[in-house]
Amino acid sequence: MKNLQKPSGMPTHKYRSYHDQFTVSLPDRTWPEARITAAPRWCAVDLRDGNQALIDPMSPERKRVMFDMLVRMGYKEIEVGFPSASQTDFDFVRSLIDEDAIPDDVTIQVLTQSREHLIRRTYESIKGAKQAIVHLYNSTSVLQRDVVFRTDKQGIIDIALTGARLCKQMESLVPGTTVYYEYSPESYTGTELEFAAEICNQVLEVFEPTPERNVIINLPSTVEMATPNVYADSIEWMSRHLNHRENVILSLHPHNDRGTGVAAAELGYMAGADRIEGCLFGNGERTGNVDLVALGINLLTQGVDPQIDFSDIDEIKRTAEYCTQLKVHERSPWSGDLVFTAFSGSHQDAIKKGFEAMAAEAADKGMSTEQMEWAVPYLPIDPKDLGRSYEAVIRVNSQSGKGGVSYLLKADHGMDLPRRLQIEFSGVVQNKTDSEGGEVTSDQIWSIFRDEYLPADDATDKWGRFELRSMRTTSDFDGGLALEVTLRDGDEIATENATGNGPIAAFLGIMNEHGVDVTLFDYVEHALSAGGDAAAAAYVELQVQGTRLWGVGVDSDISAASLKAIVSAVNRGLRSRAAQPTLAAASA
Amino acid sequence: MKNLQKPSGMPTHKYRSYHDQFTVSLPDRTWPEARITAAPRWCAVDLRDGNQALIDPMSPERKRVMFDMLVRMGYKEIEVGFPSASQTDFDFVRSLIDEDAIPDDVTIQVLTQSREHLIRRTYESIKGAKQAIVHLYNSTSVLQRDVVFRTDKQGIIDIALTGARLCKQMESLVPGTTVYYEYSPESYTGTELEFAAEICNQVLEVFEPTPERNVIINLPSTVEMATPNVYADSIEWMSRHLNHRENVILSLHPHNDRGTGVAAAELGYMAGADRIEGCLFGNGERTGNVDLVALGINLLTQGVDPQIDFSDIDEIKRTAEYCTQLKVHERSPWSGDLVFTAFSGSHQDAIKKGFEAMAAEAADKGMSTEQMEWAVPYLPIDPKDLGRSYEAVIRVNSQSGKGGVSYLLKADHGMDLPRRLQIEFSGVVQNKTDSEGGEVTSDQIWSIFRDEYLPADDATDKWGRFELRSMRTTSDFDGGLALEVTLRDGDEIATENATGNGPIAAFLGIMNEHGVDVTLFDYVEHALSAGGDAAAAAYVELQVQGTRLWGVGVDSDISAASLKAIVSAVNRGLRSRAAQPTLAAASA
Repeated sequence: MKNLQKPSGMPTHKYRSYHDQFTVSLPDRTWPEARITAAPRWCAVDLRDGNQALIDPMSPERKRVMFDMLVRMGYKEIEVGFPSASQTDFDFVRSLIDEDAIPDDVTIQVLTQSREHLIRRTYESIKGAKQAIVHLYNSTSVLQRDVVFRTDKQGIIDIALTGARLCKQMESLVPGTTVYYEYSPESYTGTELEFAAEICNQVLEVFEPTPERNVIINLPSTVEMATPNVYADSIEWMSRHLNHRENVILSLHPHNDRGTGVAAAELGYMAGADRIEGCLFGNGERTGNVDLVALGINLLTQGVDPQIDFSDIDEIKRTAEYCTQLKVHERSPWSGDLVFTAFSGSHQDAIKKGFEAMAAEAADKGMSTEQMEWAVPYLPIDPKDLGRSYEAVIRVNSQSGKGGVSYLLKADHGMDLPRRLQIEFSGVVQNKTDSEGGEVTSDQIWSIFRDEYLPADDATDKWGRFELRSMRTTSDFDGGLALEVTLRDGDEIATENATGNGPIAAFLGIMNEHGVDVTLFDYVEHALSAGGDAAAAAYVELQVQGTRLWGVGVDSDISAASLKAIVSAVNRGLRSRAAQPTLAAASA
Repeated sequence: MKNLQKPSGMPTHKYRSYHDQFTVSLPDRTWPEARITAAPRWCAVDLRDGNQALIDPMSPERKRVMFDMLVRMGYKEIEVGFPSASQTDFDFVRSLIDEDAIPDDVTIQVLTQSREHLIRRTYESIKGAKQAIVHLYNSTSVLQRDVVFRTDKQGIIDIALTGARLCKQMESLVPGTTVYYEYSPESYTGTELEFAAEICNQVLEVFEPTPERNVIINLPSTVEMATPNVYADSIEWMSRHLNHRENVILSLHPHNDRGTGVAAAELGYMAGADRIEGCLFGNGERTGNVDLVALGINLLTQGVDPQIDFSDIDEIKRTAEYCTQLKVHERSPWSGDLVFTAFSGSHQDAIKKGFEAMAAEAADKGMSTEQMEWAVPYLPIDPKDLGRSYEAVIRVNSQSGKGGVSYLLKADHGMDLPRRLQIEFSGVVQNKTDSEGGEVTSDQIWSIFRDEYLPADDATDKWGRFELRSMRTTSDFDGGLALEVTLRDGDEIATENATGNGPIAAFLGIMNEHGVDVTLFDYVEHALSAGGDAAAAAYVELQVQGTRLWGVGVDSDISAASLKAIVSAVNRGLRSRAAQPTLAAASA
């Protein structure tokens, strides 16, 4: 089987492998063996990196809504702006402080480039805060040194150190504020590792990390340039080469240019980082920052507490959408509208069986399913844990089989169809979806089901030849039963009598007398759990004039339900020969 | 700096770490050292896995549009449906064959569960195709064995082998078709590795792979359950444990539940896989299949030919959106509307400098920039290589600085503002965006610029006190110049004469005589490249009544342009004292 792919003509000559530009060598890496067993320190940068990437940056009011939500969710470090770069950001930081909006256990973080007038303005912005992280950065990459700053490595180090020293001096301006420091060698992924370590270590000498006053070294994949294992290697390398490591909080700031931001964060965390900066739903410059929702809920699925409350994901999503004016995509991990849906028949079938198995096991153990380990195929998390209902899980389109249809009938109407009836009815639904396209809602399925199996509300011709108007049974307790029914056959209504060992046998006799050749194959009934009344559903599988098919009856009297089910099957059999005889029927 | 994060109350007791459920042990893994140097074999499953996950599955017409596009892009293996599961899929496969729509070098693939009636129907669907891949699967995971199939490992192996043997028999039904096989132990990521290897090896004995007729073993992360390095470990392990490995095409089929599908595909490919199944833009069940667009263009950025043509990404996106009726998200890697945008001032500034450096280097080398290695900060790929223009790259909002504004003025209007004027004008723009919010388009920036610096079209009062109506210069070639201007000052129009060593000096004298205290600080002019006429732009920095500011003039006569620039600056200085004196001005 030959590979017949051909050259695309795309201009590969313009691009060079990351490995040909940078050396990240760590053959004794340990991170692939690491296990994540606790949440990292989180820093939410929605109000800074997220905000600066919006077509319509947040108004002060929208910023405050976002800030308050991040606090409620449990984020303790929140980058609230780049106050020296825009008046809006400055005013917002001031309003948080002046309005006393920052809880004591939350630390705001403000970004500043390492430039004198920006640093001065930054300290103006945080006056009066109980504590704050001043996040100092300058760009260190080969490319930015060459084309933006036009300086050598020493020049770049000088920029960082001059800024860091000014920061220390400026502390006298904010005597009531405990200032912590974060330094980012921006465009770290485009920087030689040795140089990144050197500049970070020199900045650390200025900031003087102590056990009480750790310093954050943040290593951003400002632009994601290689597979995520390379970022992880670089983080482990840096973790080994940073001085004062015990007093350094090693922080990640992954972007998602290659679509591997979440992986970079996870592998980088395994490689020894302590902290992750990101945005809800992956907002941020270009393809976004790493998605804090994906990272947090990924932890939960492994039994690790994210230390963030995601228990109402839809509310979090609605609020973020309001603040950013960007929609969360339908397939966004854990949060998109479609991520807990199953349209495929085999998936639906397996989900249905998974729910049933959990319920059965819980009953056996005398536990609630909430106490049990979650184990449902195709659903890696219980949607309820994120505040979602099961309603949207099973959805039916032309690719769906019996599983989804049956699940919805059971969940929403209490009808627990026998397996062969499930197959028959899913064929009815699929005929409809194949010809009309689109999704079929639970309401539509119920409507199709009623239309197919249950008497029409207004007893029109459509429903069929027979109609049961009343019934009475008399048992003489000798094994026989007398049945009297009032039956409409076409336009004629008559009272008929028959005997049998039960009402079904007696009624089949009446049908035979009306010239309908009918044989019973299967019979199932159950109480209808939905609604709370005593109604029962009866399902009968008959062979009617050579065609095998099902009928359904619902009545508070179980005998009446079963006779109605026979009428349902007979009317269907006479109404249409569309239903195929099954193999079993043919051989019966 | 204490970590103040608190327990979230999320139900961690319901979830167990992947590592506590499955053992994937590979301490001698080699994949972290691997480099990707060639494209994998691709298989596009948009018409099957993608389609079955849609609210509104594709109509036959939309399916055909998708198929034809996949072929045009260069995909040679295309899964076109699950023909035994739905009549629509069956009919579509038939239509491709009957209408001769499949190029000779393209192989269609059809999925079937390992069940007799489905396999029979599958072979019916491919009759008449030149070649086809029959993709046989059954579910092998611990969970599905327990709750769905309620059978042991041998029972699951029997399902696979019975199906595989029937496939071989059914080949006689399609004598004109070369049938290749793919086997998937579905829910592989929930299956013990030893069992996955065992069932695959037993199926391989039935399918008998040969050099001419390789067999595809596809290892789906049906549900993504762990960090992507674990998937990679499992792939390397399987690659070592599969029999007939030299005749087996090892295929990946990553889903994206944890948001790490792209990483899983890349690391799995580094771990020894040969082939990747996915969907354009990550369509597919729940959070989707791995995104073929991200994977392909990731290769290009490393100088590796994806063997797929992405040169018109917007057309591909529009077509996929039409077919799936799902929007591609604004931040979707390489394809979203916002992924090549830069709103932040420092990013814009760096991008502008990157473009300029490339142009300068290309000029030095006598090359076109298209021949050079791409090197622009914050733009990991040249948007033009994907059919995008640069227009959307630089976008201005309240977070933007001088870089973006200046870039747009230069790109769209040929105005190359001096650096201090860039700063002044970006302040004008930022005042506007800070107060009004939202994005500012290039047209709006031009409008703000004209409103601020250039005469109003209808010479209303707003423009200012002075207006230059005409000018004449006479040079006596002894170093002096005589200037005669017709000047409106308020409502009075007069002809004035002055001399100087040039027209600017002479005109400043006239201004002083009108009682305006004005000093020249800087003067720059350039021809306007845009438009093709000989117009020139002049920029003057003046101190007007103690305030330092810029003026701009445009005229086909360079002298007139400079006098107009002086009028511009003077009018601005008299109109408003809003412009702050700069430090330099204060010390001047």
